[in-house]
Amino acid sequence: MGLDNRVNCCPDGLVTDRRRRIKVLDCTIRDGGICNQWDFDHALVRQVFDALAASGIDYMEVGYKTQDGVFDRNAVGPWRFCEEADLRQVVEAGPMKIATMVDVNRVTHKEIPPSDDTAIDVIRIATYAHQIEDALTLLDHCLEQGYETFMNVMAVSTLSPDEVDTFLKKLAGSGIHNVAIVDSYGALYPYHVRYLVHKYMNYLGEQTKVGVHFHNNQQQAFANSIAAIDEGVDFVDATLHGIGRGAGNCPLELLLFYLDNPRHDPRPILDLVEHFASMREDLRWGYHLPYAISGYFNIHPRSAMDRMARMDRYQVREMFETLAKDT
Amino acid sequence: MGLDNRVNCCPDGLVTDRRRRIKVLDCTIRDGGICNQWDFDHALVRQVFDALAASGIDYMEVGYKTQDGVFDRNAVGPWRFCEEADLRQVVEAGPMKIATMVDVNRVTHKEIPPSDDTAIDVIRIATYAHQIEDALTLLDHCLEQGYETFMNVMAVSTLSPDEVDTFLKKLAGSGIHNVAIVDSYGALYPYHVRYLVHKYMNYLGEQTKVGVHFHNNQQQAFANSIAAIDEGVDFVDATLHGIGRGAGNCPLELLLFYLDNPRHDPRPILDLVEHFASMREDLRWGYHLPYAISGYFNIHPRSAMDRMARMDRYQVREMFETLAKDT
Repeated sequence: MGLDNRVNCCPDGLVTDRRRRIKVLDCTIRDGGICNQWDFDHALVRQVFDALAASGIDYMEVGYKTQDGVFDRNAVGPWRFCEEADLRQVVEAGPMKIATMVDVNRVTHKEIPPSDDTAIDVIRIATYAHQIEDALTLLDHCLEQGYETFMNVMAVSTLSPDEVDTFLKKLAGSGIHNVAIVDSYGALYPYHVRYLVHKYMNYLGEQTKVGVHFHNNQQQAFANSIAAIDEGVDFVDATLHGIGRGAGNCPLELLLFYLDNPRHDPRPILDLVEHFASMREDLRWGYHLPYAISGYFNIHPRSAMDRMARMDRYQVREMFETLAKDT
Repeated sequence: MGLDNRVNCCPDGLVTDRRRRIKVLDCTIRDGGICNQWDFDHALVRQVFDALAASGIDYMEVGYKTQDGVFDRNAVGPWRFCEEADLRQVVEAGPMKIATMVDVNRVTHKEIPPSDDTAIDVIRIATYAHQIEDALTLLDHCLEQGYETFMNVMAVSTLSPDEVDTFLKKLAGSGIHNVAIVDSYGALYPYHVRYLVHKYMNYLGEQTKVGVHFHNNQQQAFANSIAAIDEGVDFVDATLHGIGRGAGNCPLELLLFYLDNPRHDPRPILDLVEHFASMREDLRWGYHLPYAISGYFNIHPRSAMDRMARMDRYQVREMFETLAKDT
């Protein structure tokens, strides 16, 4: 519908072009699934598919492909596996592409058939920098099978500049279609993001697009996305109402408001917000002090998630002081 | 305590100087009071004073001065009036300065005695641009009485560039010590903020410091503060756990983490967070869809606050469509 920005105290033209070129990847079911063990029922996932498609979203990441034995199928929902029979109930071929994530070392070639045999268009490989050789082997298989292939090199905030250079050099010329800057710990501020966007773009060159996947521990997921858009990235990850591990991700509704692109319509996703807002009261993603502190100290959100499950979740001073001593 | 930023994938020196020059104004009781009719008990306000002082905060805004008859004293708490007898129970003279806000046309000269006769160091005048002449008259009185005097020209996001220029020209040379960029509606993005910081600094010159007061409707209060710090402002407003009208303000804890200034210690305020986090469950400030939508449409949060008090608070599509038609 293309609503113009309503603030008239500032000329707007400068940033419009950079906003409107962005492709949006929704990872509500995949990253949001970390909050509820991927236990979304098929009807809801279908509603999400329909709403995203109607809103003009470019990619829907619907879960993970996972090899047998890594997760107990009685303990986690279907979107940790994305079996073809499940996918066929919730997605349809159309302009919106369907993505699934795979974790390096939690998937074999068997789970990644030729792309013509599945509803999946895109495989996104999640890897840590130290696993990059295994990730490259997996990449070759995905490309051979005919997939558009993306890579998330996680927890970049924990690496030294040299370690970032090293994996980017290996990815340059690898054939990967998209590499995301991934702030798994919610530790980055916009000045980090600006620095990293230039680094990723310079190393990866024209053949590989740069995306971003941010966590909201310090209320920076959307702000960091804006900073990345300003610097020229092509893809931004977001989720409905910001659902995602720990503090969650960039809220899709805020991103669509900002992008101000006539090809996106925020209205269909607003119909789903009521449901996700209610889920948030139970699952407690969003801004909470334990997440803010784990983000600030640049550590995995695991301990903060454990704390959020307890009644004394907001008694954070001792958590802060322990981390301040350790780091 | 001066914790260094822990992200080592990005050189940090560039922004450190700009961060460390910032003075912090806490407006927990004043703006947070809009959430509970300023009905904080004296013991809690005293705890807030002690924590802010121990954390090295520069200014505490403890409420409003208000003329008789504007508010029913049985319906609102003491911090809407800041009588001297109340103030003396909760603050003490020390390095942290005590501020109160006054609304133009809701205060007379009688409520603003000579500064030597009160615990108040700073008067902050809240005005809309169209009331600027009355604000200037009030400013003269405050300066004569010996106060450091600040001004918040509200809802700048609703003004045209010319209207902003007009009030800034009137404030230049007026003797005002500090003028804040005030995003009352939570409508601004960082690119607006960067534009406005330069405009305010250019018009106001060296004599007048520029501050910022942001609302969090679109998760931009802290991000906009970072953008303003990058551009060279001197003051930033924040509140404990982000309490404030509607979606609230920039969370003080996040701001202190970011400023990374050895003269600030975040630990004392963390002791209060548990209390404010519990209050948030009842008072519902923070990120909620009705606030996101009112911010995006650049309207007063009043209708969103009314909606948040209802059970169907998250059914927002009709709200969105009505606003999309009207604007």
